Amino acid sequence: MSNKANTQSLLSILRKTHLAEWEATPSIHDTTAWLDDLIHFLFPNNHLPKRNAYEGVLKKNQIDLENLLLSYLEPSGLQIEEVVTEFYNSLESIYHDLRQDAVKIYEYDPAATSVNEVIVSYPGFYAITVYRIANKLSLLQVPMLPRIVSEYAHGKTGIDIHPNATIGVPFMIDHGTGIVIGETTVIGKNVSIYQGVTLGALQVAKSLAEVKRHPTVEDNVIIYARTTILGGNTVIGKNSVIGGSVFLTKSVEPNSQVFNTHQLRITVKETA
Amino acid sequence: MSNKANTQSLLSILRKTHLAEWEATPSIHDTTAWLDDLIHFLFPNNHLPKRNAYEGVLKKNQIDLENLLLSYLEPSGLQIEEVVTEFYNSLESIYHDLRQDAVKIYEYDPAATSVNEVIVSYPGFYAITVYRIANKLSLLQVPMLPRIVSEYAHGKTGIDIHPNATIGVPFMIDHGTGIVIGETTVIGKNVSIYQGVTLGALQVAKSLAEVKRHPTVEDNVIIYARTTILGGNTVIGKNSVIGGSVFLTKSVEPNSQVFNTHQLRITVKETA
Amino acid sequence: MSNKANTQSLLSILRKTHLAEWEATPSIHDTTAWLDDLIHFLFPNNHLPKRNAYEGVLKKNQIDLENLLLSYLEPSGLQIEEVVTEFYNSLESIYHDLRQDAVKIYEYDPAATSVNEVIVSYPGFYAITVYRIANKLSLLQVPMLPRIVSEYAHGKTGIDIHPNATIGVPFMIDHGTGIVIGETTVIGKNVSIYQGVTLGALQVAKSLAEVKRHPTVEDNVIIYARTTILGGNTVIGKNSVIGGSVFLTKSVEPNSQVFNTHQLRITVKETA
Amino acid sequence: MSNKANTQSLLSILRKTHLAEWEATPSIHDTTAWLDDLIHFLFPNNHLPKRNAYEGVLKKNQIDLENLLLSYLEPSGLQIEEVVTEFYNSLESIYHDLRQDAVKIYEYDPAATSVNEVIVSYPGFYAITVYRIANKLSLLQVPMLPRIVSEYAHGKTGIDIHPNATIGVPFMIDHGTGIVIGETTVIGKNVSIYQGVTLGALQVAKSLAEVKRHPTVEDNVIIYARTTILGGNTVIGKNSVIGGSVFLTKSVEPNSQVFNTHQLRITVKETA
Amino acid sequence: MSNKANTQSLLSILRKTHLAEWEATPSIHDTTAWLDDLIHFLFPNNHLPKRNAYEGVLKKNQIDLENLLLSYLEPSGLQIEEVVTEFYNSLESIYHDLRQDAVKIYEYDPAATSVNEVIVSYPGFYAITVYRIANKLSLLQVPMLPRIVSEYAHGKTGIDIHPNATIGVPFMIDHGTGIVIGETTVIGKNVSIYQGVTLGALQVAKSLAEVKRHPTVEDNVIIYARTTILGGNTVIGKNSVIGGSVFLTKSVEPNSQVFNTHQLRITVKETA
Amino acid sequence: MSNKANTQSLLSILRKTHLAEWEATPSIHDTTAWLDDLIHFLFPNNHLPKRNAYEGVLKKNQIDLENLLLSYLEPSGLQIEEVVTEFYNSLESIYHDLRQDAVKIYEYDPAATSVNEVIVSYPGFYAITVYRIANKLSLLQVPMLPRIVSEYAHGKTGIDIHPNATIGVPFMIDHGTGIVIGETTVIGKNVSIYQGVTLGALQVAKSLAEVKRHPTVEDNVIIYARTTILGGNTVIGKNSVIGGSVFLTKSVEPNSQVFNTHQLRITVKETA
Repeated sequence: MSNKANTQSLLSILRKTHLAEWEATPSIHDTTAWLDDLIHFLFPNNHLPKRNAYEGVLKKNQIDLENLLLSYLEPSGLQIEEVVTEFYNSLESIYHDLRQDAVKIYEYDPAATSVNEVIVSYPGFYAITVYRIANKLSLLQVPMLPRIVSEYAHGKTGIDIHPNATIGVPFMIDHGTGIVIGETTVIGKNVSIYQGVTLGALQVAKSLAEVKRHPTVEDNVIIYARTTILGGNTVIGKNSVIGGSVFLTKSVEPNSQVFNTHQLRITVKETA
Repeated sequence: MSNKANTQSLLSILRKTHLAEWEATPSIHDTTAWLDDLIHFLFPNNHLPKRNAYEGVLKKNQIDLENLLLSYLEPSGLQIEEVVTEFYNSLESIYHDLRQDAVKIYEYDPAATSVNEVIVSYPGFYAITVYRIANKLSLLQVPMLPRIVSEYAHGKTGIDIHPNATIGVPFMIDHGTGIVIGETTVIGKNVSIYQGVTLGALQVAKSLAEVKRHPTVEDNVIIYARTTILGGNTVIGKNSVIGGSVFLTKSVEPNSQVFNTHQLRITVKETA
Repeated sequence: MSNKANTQSLLSILRKTHLAEWEATPSIHDTTAWLDDLIHFLFPNNHLPKRNAYEGVLKKNQIDLENLLLSYLEPSGLQIEEVVTEFYNSLESIYHDLRQDAVKIYEYDPAATSVNEVIVSYPGFYAITVYRIANKLSLLQVPMLPRIVSEYAHGKTGIDIHPNATIGVPFMIDHGTGIVIGETTVIGKNVSIYQGVTLGALQVAKSLAEVKRHPTVEDNVIIYARTTILGGNTVIGKNSVIGGSVFLTKSVEPNSQVFNTHQLRITVKETA
Repeated sequence: MSNKANTQSLLSILRKTHLAEWEATPSIHDTTAWLDDLIHFLFPNNHLPKRNAYEGVLKKNQIDLENLLLSYLEPSGLQIEEVVTEFYNSLESIYHDLRQDAVKIYEYDPAATSVNEVIVSYPGFYAITVYRIANKLSLLQVPMLPRIVSEYAHGKTGIDIHPNATIGVPFMIDHGTGIVIGETTVIGKNVSIYQGVTLGALQVAKSLAEVKRHPTVEDNVIIYARTTILGGNTVIGKNSVIGGSVFLTKSVEPNSQVFNTHQLRITVKETA
Repeated sequence: MSNKANTQSLLSILRKTHLAEWEATPSIHDTTAWLDDLIHFLFPNNHLPKRNAYEGVLKKNQIDLENLLLSYLEPSGLQIEEVVTEFYNSLESIYHDLRQDAVKIYEYDPAATSVNEVIVSYPGFYAITVYRIANKLSLLQVPMLPRIVSEYAHGKTGIDIHPNATIGVPFMIDHGTGIVIGETTVIGKNVSIYQGVTLGALQVAKSLAEVKRHPTVEDNVIIYARTTILGGNTVIGKNSVIGGSVFLTKSVEPNSQVFNTHQLRITVKETA
Repeated sequence: MSNKANTQSLLSILRKTHLAEWEATPSIHDTTAWLDDLIHFLFPNNHLPKRNAYEGVLKKNQIDLENLLLSYLEPSGLQIEEVVTEFYNSLESIYHDLRQDAVKIYEYDPAATSVNEVIVSYPGFYAITVYRIANKLSLLQVPMLPRIVSEYAHGKTGIDIHPNATIGVPFMIDHGTGIVIGETTVIGKNVSIYQGVTLGALQVAKSLAEVKRHPTVEDNVIIYARTTILGGNTVIGKNSVIGGSVFLTKSVEPNSQVFNTHQLRITVKETA
């Protein structure tokens, strides 16, 4: 009989551990609902608010963020209010950055037919949007939330940008699945990267948490698909083009072009 | 106080830009709801309609598509109706293609235990399903919708097939995460590809929008995981097998076998 | 007129095939709802049950699983009850394994700030959680469900672990997108793998369904990003470190360090 | 143990009876969803459709009705299509009647501050709206649906109008709870009735199904709260006013005023 | 500024009182969801379970009830399990009673066209269904739940039957709005009552909680609309017919016919 | 063919009238969602907020109200903020009044077993709760919203209390279905009324909008079921008891007891 499963010991463990964990953790559901509302407010593709309602919709989004923070942080209320105010003060700037990102993607990708199409359908644009929001929260020292928000975008797009990375404007991602941009990466203006690019660490160890472990990519660089660039001292000089499927652990001068020169073995056989 | 954030300037910008954008953009929610309904109609795994209801469920799906198109296109009603009619006229053919795709995956993959299992759980099959639907809409000159639909599947599967690509029947994808099939790719019959394969462009520039930028893959080709094939003039001849992690920018004769011959450095050290 | 589309023939085919398919297939919606409930029960981040309610919530989850199994399997009721009992009897053990997985990720990743953060936001942890659940169902000979559950996690994380793979405790995945761990893979204790790693088969053919086609990875191994290891006879000896973007089809001794030695062509050009 | 309840015999009965019942019964959920959509289309108080979308929203509502009818009636498709067409052809006329009803309520009720307020908040107006829709379906010989729709309004308002009743335009109901208007009632133009009024039958017996059992109320009559008027031959002549809490089983001449003359016993006591 | 409202004192009160109340109170949402599921299981009008799923659906409903009881009662687990078992053991008997109720309504009401129509659309039948469920829970000494369930039906139908009332089989209610059947009412077999009938107490005082305060109605009685019968010693003898709008505080012999003989004042005036 | 229905003329009318109506009307959905949240905040029976979250939940409710008002009123922002602040400043007082109402119902009704039971299951308590909220909004001159809120409670309980009525504390309603309390009614402290009581107007005419049309009921009065009291000059003196089914249009001295003395005709017949 199925109900005879012996789960008493598990239940007793869960009752003990859950309360502590829950007090220190934001609700994923509430976090992603807040994010969805915010993005839909900036780039709606469905029902618009009435003209008079714009301000209120944004105010509500502010309260939602404030409530989220209150739900898992110690109630040092003043500081939370300051963080929320600062975040929304910077929203206009984030919006302008994102418009520049969208325009760059449109101007670059031959497959894009309008800026609107980029906004509603490009996962790269979505990932950048969430990054710029998460990064601002990180700069304001908000714990956990930036990461939950980033992983939500990661789940939807396959693009994994750590909220602490530094990324200039505009920034372009195409296709995007498999991209990893590590915590201490620094990316300049007008950089383009393609699916599967990793900007990662040479070594991973807890003791390195405070060290710059990920590369620096200067302005106007293009990095094609599936290329891996590793190391905190690795600098890709400005105006460089890094070809696809390259594996780089050393710096590259400005204006370089780096290509893969795999040797392949080809056999022509008779068909069976 | 959190509500003191100064957002007036942002609000005034959004009020101006939203209306124009919104008129020219389909609702993502309505688009994906239409797609979900259509796929569930073809391959239900939950409540079946009553026998008499089949026709009505499909009619409703037609109206939903028609309404979607009306919501963001200029009201040249007659043409929209023709597009919708043509799309549903071709649905039986799409269904037969998809059954062949599912059977091929089942017959090929040692891990597949039934065709039903392929239909309900293989992301590759899901991506192909959405591609065949999106591609038909593209051929009917429907703007934006095919791309939204494709990116929805991309988000769920990590498989990015441009709706304008041309793909024969049957087609097999396994695992699939990271696959990119570009806009002008042409794939023959009975081709199999694995996770991380890119069929991409050598260069990306807006001016190339009308040029064939992506490869041609002839009948009966297998391309193993993480291989990259680039260029509009690159042709993989029929019956060829391209091994994993290969990087190809030139054509390959029919019946070829192409393998990776990386040289690795191996050090055997004492354990710490 | 849109409704003039000729769909009679399609409708008649669907009416015939749906009933048979539907009887033999679990509802994806019900399956994923059951899984969501179970994971939320083990690691809640939202409303907690009242203390007295814990047992009941778990009992309900049991009934849901039993109902799922009854919905598509032949009604050999007794066996289903045994499977369900056995599964829930092993849940405490799964929970302990997962806590060890979470702790390892936290201790290893410099970007992780608490075990809680790992639990609520790391896709690697989510994928391992679903794998341990799916694997137990597979060991109990449950058909289809383990695969649906695995592909649900695959869709959310880009991490594709076959439920029949064997994976020791603890296990660490970071970033994760693009990872593929094949059906007959065997992984020891304390192994770490990064995004884009494939543990795959050298060849794919239906006739190989009963053969070990995927590698063995011994204890304490680290495999960095985008590395591909293929073949059922390939063994990565304990304590080895396999660098990123490596392509391996042969065994490696214990305590080895394996690195990529790609040769690149670098051109320094004048900026345009 | 709770699961030991012996329910086998019940289950076996339900399995037998359900299928037959279900084939002959519309889904309450789908029926009320259709009705909600239709009323919201006529009198929206939330998101408006885009201008181009109006026609499509209505077309979808038509398909929903057609599907509802197909779901429980024998598939004599042509007739169903005729019924649906006829219903929507009459929708403009229903809309004009309802605007007159709303205006009358507004002009009559001292508590009403605008016609809009009547439309969004008066249960009497809601009940009349549903009646006019249900009555049209009844006239078109649609079985069951009119009654489900009427009882839905009854549940929300406490106003029970049989869909077969005949009611002129305009018609006013205020407060409304407890009103019963029987199947063969005939009500003229410009009639007002208040809460708790019953227009009922003197006797109830199955054999009377084809007989006029309920009263006739001529033009310009007012019937105040809690009055009961019974009998198929009872006629309230035009321009009459029937006071509150009256019990009438006989006809009343035109231009009559009918009042209650209860005798009460009043005791004035000392307070405790 | 709206957020300046001074609510600190209220918040501090609520924080204090909520926890205690919440521990002793079942969730209304969960209670009504359980009830909806149970009724839909007995009388489905939408998706049927698969044949094999019937038992599981019922088992799940049992667990839901058990969880509800656990959520607000002291954890004397064994007794709760007995109550649940006993309730489901009696479900077949409740189902048979309800079928008789539905048949009686159909055979009596000239407006009813089928038993199915009664089941899906008659509020009287719905109220009786909920009463028979609530009454069984009351007999099993379950606190609060029966009342929540009864008031849910009251809200939907305007029919207020106290769960402790005793009502024979079959029982017929037509229209129903405004009916009140008090806690200590006893009703025999084959009784019919109409809208607005009150079976109430002559006096209301807390000290009377244990006294029979409401009437007894013997077999085969009909009570027409808006009639009020008061008092714990008032007995309506078998086979009697009580007309509409009657006010009774004394017993009536078997086989009686009781009618209202209001005197009305009628004035015929000239129209304005 | 169903889509041939000619609806062009209707569509063109709706497109014209909807925009104007919609601008001046609050969304019913948003209004009732706000109310549900507010009541659940005061009297939760499901998930409690965390301790720190109380303030935020209430703040969010404030923003929701502010947004509602902005959505249909002219944007004289300052005044709206004042109204909202004033409303929430008075919420503690409303809460205390409601606790007194609940205690009175519990102490009075022999069927009530705890104050909690009253709060979660008594429709009378629910109607009073909504009245006290709606009345405060009315006093603050908020248009339309109080009425929508009142009719929402009316729909759920059958109790129709105009938000402009004046009602002292505590106030008791039992059963309640069919109660109507008109706009200019004045009710003192500690009054009890039962189902079907109307406190109404003798005449209804638009010209009377500013006149006191409904009765005054002084302190400590009890009015039993189905009694009707009409007229703006009618005063029920303090400490009086008005029996059931009484029809009153004149004032009654303090300390009176008023009873119904219907004469009935009783016939005892032989059973058929």
